[in-house]
Amino acid sequence: MKVPTRAIPILVPGYRFAGVRCGLKASGKRDVALIVSDVPAVAAGAFTTNLVKAAPVVLSTERVRRGRAQAVLVNSGNANAYTGRTGAAVAREMCGLVARELGVAESLVLPSSTGRIGQQLPRARVRRGVVEACRALAPDGFHRALEGIMTTDAFPKFALERVLLDDAEVTIAGMAKGAGMIAPRMALAGAPHATMLSYILTDARVSRAGLERALRIGLEQSFNVAVVDGDTSTNDTVLLLANGVAGNREVTPRSAAFAEFSGAVGRIMRTLARMVVKDGEGATKVIDIHVRRARDVRDAERVADAIARSPLCKAAFYGGDPYAGRVVCAAGYSGARFDPTRLDVYLDDVCIVRRGQEIIDKPVERRASRVVTRDEFSLTIDLHAGSAVAHRMASDLTVDYVKFNSDYRT
Amino acid sequence: MKVPTRAIPILVPGYRFAGVRCGLKASGKRDVALIVSDVPAVAAGAFTTNLVKAAPVVLSTERVRRGRAQAVLVNSGNANAYTGRTGAAVAREMCGLVARELGVAESLVLPSSTGRIGQQLPRARVRRGVVEACRALAPDGFHRALEGIMTTDAFPKFALERVLLDDAEVTIAGMAKGAGMIAPRMALAGAPHATMLSYILTDARVSRAGLERALRIGLEQSFNVAVVDGDTSTNDTVLLLANGVAGNREVTPRSAAFAEFSGAVGRIMRTLARMVVKDGEGATKVIDIHVRRARDVRDAERVADAIARSPLCKAAFYGGDPYAGRVVCAAGYSGARFDPTRLDVYLDDVCIVRRGQEIIDKPVERRASRVVTRDEFSLTIDLHAGSAVAHRMASDLTVDYVKFNSDYRT
Repeated sequence: MKVPTRAIPILVPGYRFAGVRCGLKASGKRDVALIVSDVPAVAAGAFTTNLVKAAPVVLSTERVRRGRAQAVLVNSGNANAYTGRTGAAVAREMCGLVARELGVAESLVLPSSTGRIGQQLPRARVRRGVVEACRALAPDGFHRALEGIMTTDAFPKFALERVLLDDAEVTIAGMAKGAGMIAPRMALAGAPHATMLSYILTDARVSRAGLERALRIGLEQSFNVAVVDGDTSTNDTVLLLANGVAGNREVTPRSAAFAEFSGAVGRIMRTLARMVVKDGEGATKVIDIHVRRARDVRDAERVADAIARSPLCKAAFYGGDPYAGRVVCAAGYSGARFDPTRLDVYLDDVCIVRRGQEIIDKPVERRASRVVTRDEFSLTIDLHAGSAVAHRMASDLTVDYVKFNSDYRT
Repeated sequence: MKVPTRAIPILVPGYRFAGVRCGLKASGKRDVALIVSDVPAVAAGAFTTNLVKAAPVVLSTERVRRGRAQAVLVNSGNANAYTGRTGAAVAREMCGLVARELGVAESLVLPSSTGRIGQQLPRARVRRGVVEACRALAPDGFHRALEGIMTTDAFPKFALERVLLDDAEVTIAGMAKGAGMIAPRMALAGAPHATMLSYILTDARVSRAGLERALRIGLEQSFNVAVVDGDTSTNDTVLLLANGVAGNREVTPRSAAFAEFSGAVGRIMRTLARMVVKDGEGATKVIDIHVRRARDVRDAERVADAIARSPLCKAAFYGGDPYAGRVVCAAGYSGARFDPTRLDVYLDDVCIVRRGQEIIDKPVERRASRVVTRDEFSLTIDLHAGSAVAHRMASDLTVDYVKFNSDYRT
């Protein structure tokens, strides 16, 4: 996977962006981002399923239910999570400020936060940042806004698609942040896991049902299959806005153009989710875990999740060790029902376990070892128990992950 | 907790022990252990719940169901797991060899293995080791046998109790091994998770029901609450043998002496389980996680397990960071039902979250920081949602854990 290291200009008709500094990050980097559509947009959102939801998640969930939004206000450096009534009031206040400054309805302003859990936002500082962001809005501000949403990210994550819907060309652009506390389990206007934020903006005209359906499809193949550490955040948020200025015939779940639109949104979300895993704190590898022929989807997911979260499997991936025993062991304790004597395991196209027996053969071991040293490879577990499948994109567990996370606060 | 670093002599009337070398370990250390009772003993066992069970686990489970055993044969350096029919035949063959050498019924010989998964045992070598072990049996061989069951352990784990049952003094001695792949979930003659082996031997006269009950009670407060990495092994085994040579009145679940006996067995198992966590691969700390006032036991366990397995919480413990946000986040995604605004969190006796709000106060932070730098401390989460409780003994996640497990095979 190519990592977008250089900023290529991203323009989405009808949107303006800003990213400013108000002092929430010790690094002094941009920490307030604002995305505004010139006109109210159709909106769909998905949020963490963590029972403990950050204040902005609660407010955004409530607001996006109405299906419309015009501005997204994000701060990094502080999650505004576990901050009680004060935190909720501050989230509301900052949205109100955006509404007044820009003359948009307050209910159309959606807040997000990411950073440390359990601390109140410094109100005065954030107010200054919000006002400054409102004044700095510009059509070419995408990358500044993106910097404003980043926390522990090593590189910016964005993707762009231009597609023809009927006869109109539309633009779809997405940005994301996230590196740790990643195991999103999001539900539409109600559920994910990891601090992972993503905003996908398009000038296409799309019905609310079409937008929600595209988000739902995309989510299940992207952020919801990404696992860094398995810790589901209190703040995960994905928002999809369509302002319709491209003037195309409205895309609905039944229109001919839906597949094209939904496909492009899906590609963007998958690209962004993959970047999040690749940038997993300390990660050196992206492993695509595919479970095949499970008895049902729940079982397929159990096996995929057990492996994606197993410290032993993840440490072996880091070490470049094709240790089939740990993979089989994780499948065994996952709770899935299968016959261990029928299990097959592959690393890319190299079969390392056949019918429940590890293949002990020097050339196979050499090929498997080569696969595991790559920075991206797939691990396929065939359970021979049914026809259900599951996929997870996982990072490895590294010395740097532990160093980073044992030293986060200090 | 004191770690038993020096070998104090352990004698259990009516038992002989051996530990020999047959070349399964690259280190050249003892790798075959044998424990034999002079007379057939009443026996109870608990085994991994992993769907993938090692060959010796399957055989021991089957044999211990009859409630009697006379010998326990253990090899380290190779788990004999995921080894198919050949592995099962080898386990059976080695037990047969012990039976013939010692003149005991083959069905009374229980095998265990621990080490690498997925490789066949070298038959000829192990046969030689088994024969040698049979000849080396001695009443004072406890520590040699203990060395023979160890793998990645940094120190030997054993405990001893002498208690009066009615008027007879009885001895109860336990040994254990285990450091990684630790999250035992064992069920009596049928279920745990992690390679963790433990053998508890007593000369007490105990009924089968009494022995099983003592094992069941002990297990739920010891090995089954121990978590190093959350990976449940294919080989976990706990065996409890009572040969009755002390001549006490038989202990049954209803006899007056049961509480005394069961209490001593429980203390030994808790001590051994704690040693396993303390010796967790790379671990520097033991954290007792207590969940209180959960809606039901399942919810209490969900919260305790989520925290005990969360890489972010465990890395924070390692770093000596009392980061309440990660604990609250893990409780939130655990699946347990509670009101986040009523949650209290304590580090030892220092309250760091009260009614869902992190306490921001310098003296409290200083006290909490001091607690987290200790090598043993407790973390208590009060959910205010009911009356159920749960306990887990967890290790921290360290740089050395990752180094060790990314480099295990090479």
